[in-house]
Amino acid sequence: MDFSAWMSSIQQRIESALEHLLPASSLEPARLHEAMRYATLDGGKRVRPLLCHGSGEIFGVAPELLDQAACAVEMIHVYSLVHDDLPCMDDDVLRRGKPTCHVEFDEATALLVGDALQSLAFQTLSETALAAPRQVSMLRLLAQASGSRGMAGGQAIDLAATGQALSLEELEFMHIHKTGALIRAAVLLGAHCGQADEAALASLTQFANRVGLLFQVVDDILDAESNTATLGKTAGKDAAHNKPTYVSLLGATQAKQKAAELRAQAHDCLVPYGAQARRLHELTDYIVERKF
Amino acid sequence: MDFSAWMSSIQQRIESALEHLLPASSLEPARLHEAMRYATLDGGKRVRPLLCHGSGEIFGVAPELLDQAACAVEMIHVYSLVHDDLPCMDDDVLRRGKPTCHVEFDEATALLVGDALQSLAFQTLSETALAAPRQVSMLRLLAQASGSRGMAGGQAIDLAATGQALSLEELEFMHIHKTGALIRAAVLLGAHCGQADEAALASLTQFANRVGLLFQVVDDILDAESNTATLGKTAGKDAAHNKPTYVSLLGATQAKQKAAELRAQAHDCLVPYGAQARRLHELTDYIVERKF
Repeated sequence: MDFSAWMSSIQQRIESALEHLLPASSLEPARLHEAMRYATLDGGKRVRPLLCHGSGEIFGVAPELLDQAACAVEMIHVYSLVHDDLPCMDDDVLRRGKPTCHVEFDEATALLVGDALQSLAFQTLSETALAAPRQVSMLRLLAQASGSRGMAGGQAIDLAATGQALSLEELEFMHIHKTGALIRAAVLLGAHCGQADEAALASLTQFANRVGLLFQVVDDILDAESNTATLGKTAGKDAAHNKPTYVSLLGATQAKQKAAELRAQAHDCLVPYGAQARRLHELTDYIVERKF
Repeated sequence: MDFSAWMSSIQQRIESALEHLLPASSLEPARLHEAMRYATLDGGKRVRPLLCHGSGEIFGVAPELLDQAACAVEMIHVYSLVHDDLPCMDDDVLRRGKPTCHVEFDEATALLVGDALQSLAFQTLSETALAAPRQVSMLRLLAQASGSRGMAGGQAIDLAATGQALSLEELEFMHIHKTGALIRAAVLLGAHCGQADEAALASLTQFANRVGLLFQVVDDILDAESNTATLGKTAGKDAAHNKPTYVSLLGATQAKQKAAELRAQAHDCLVPYGAQARRLHELTDYIVERKF
């Protein structure tokens, strides 16, 4: 199967699994469930679920054993987008080509959508068929990645950084938390579904750290160079919000050079796995070459 | 030990455990950690941790084995208060006798405080010394209680009910989710820390359902009859927001009658446990007789 067919097949699996895991709109409270489904379904590239599946494939894990972990990470990601778009945060009106959740529904509902998606992510991970000790490790990993020393902490650092002059080190520190923590969790959860040993987890952590930064560098380039219609979210908002980015710090040319280096480093981390790591290798390329 | 001494000793245990579980204010992101500590520490009656400890005592569980579960429930409770107080929800300025989190800090920080406290609750439950299968059950129980079919769903029902005429049944449906789900989780998590069998879990569920409603009926009476200084939160806000309450539906006299019935029913559920259920029995009385 070529990469594009593999990607489509995983994206379809994830859509169908999310569809199943999210409460039906007919269940009370119906408006909340409708809004959770609006925010989660039919949108996004599902990069984190793809990374989770790609990582699990290294260890020969069957796709059906990876879906719940992949969906749990995606639920955390979607909740963070819904909260990040709220007026008190980025105040954004467009996401994945649709009105943001608080615009389509209302702010209070969007707040609860995020809250409930976070709970559902942990519920989903607690309902896998994996052995209990492994489930506990995975739940701990996702909780750490989501919290104040992970993704939520990264958003706090981002808030504090808006309008500030950051060094490249400070910018990386922010992204290692804000985007990096969850990307790392996606890769490691996939590996946890299989028989990954400590050495494998360590090298995949290195891979994920590179991919997390790579993802952000490319995001910054796209935000600076693309347009809203292509991105499906508001373009140019980093500059408009006076947010430090790789492009504002390094310039576009050097940012692209940085992306090329990170891609090469990420690929290097996969060498020990040979052809087993094919999908993670291809995903790294996809992250660089994507147009939105 | 009399009830008041027991309550103080548990409250002190919980304060000390929360102090230890929350990241230090010196850790980055410092402002977020400071705000998490501000919202969580030095406040509240810790009713849910007390219920968790009281329930665990029935099964002879040592207090040190109950602290993490008790703190996890309290973290979920505190996160819900912080989000509930936001301008897009109840827009409240006073909580536990202090300015609310978004007033003391800012809205974006308060949003992230709630988000990060929810993650920390699950992280805390994933780090207990209990056997892994039990940990997974407890994580699942807390996630279900917190989500769209539990507490967050209850808040959505509450939002939709503001300004509406509700029947008593509809009001109870709301509270069974909004307050009841987490109170039930507190009682059941305490029981899960011990060797509770299915029958015990069923009878304690009945107990917790009564106590959850009782808590809410008394809250409604206090909101109608007390003042802001005594409550440590804004009094009379249900009426001001045109929210249906037991007092607005039944009148004060019948609401008090209802509280007396629920107390008796809750006590009945504890009969099989005899003196082992002493603290839950006393806590039920405390919930009725409290002044704030």
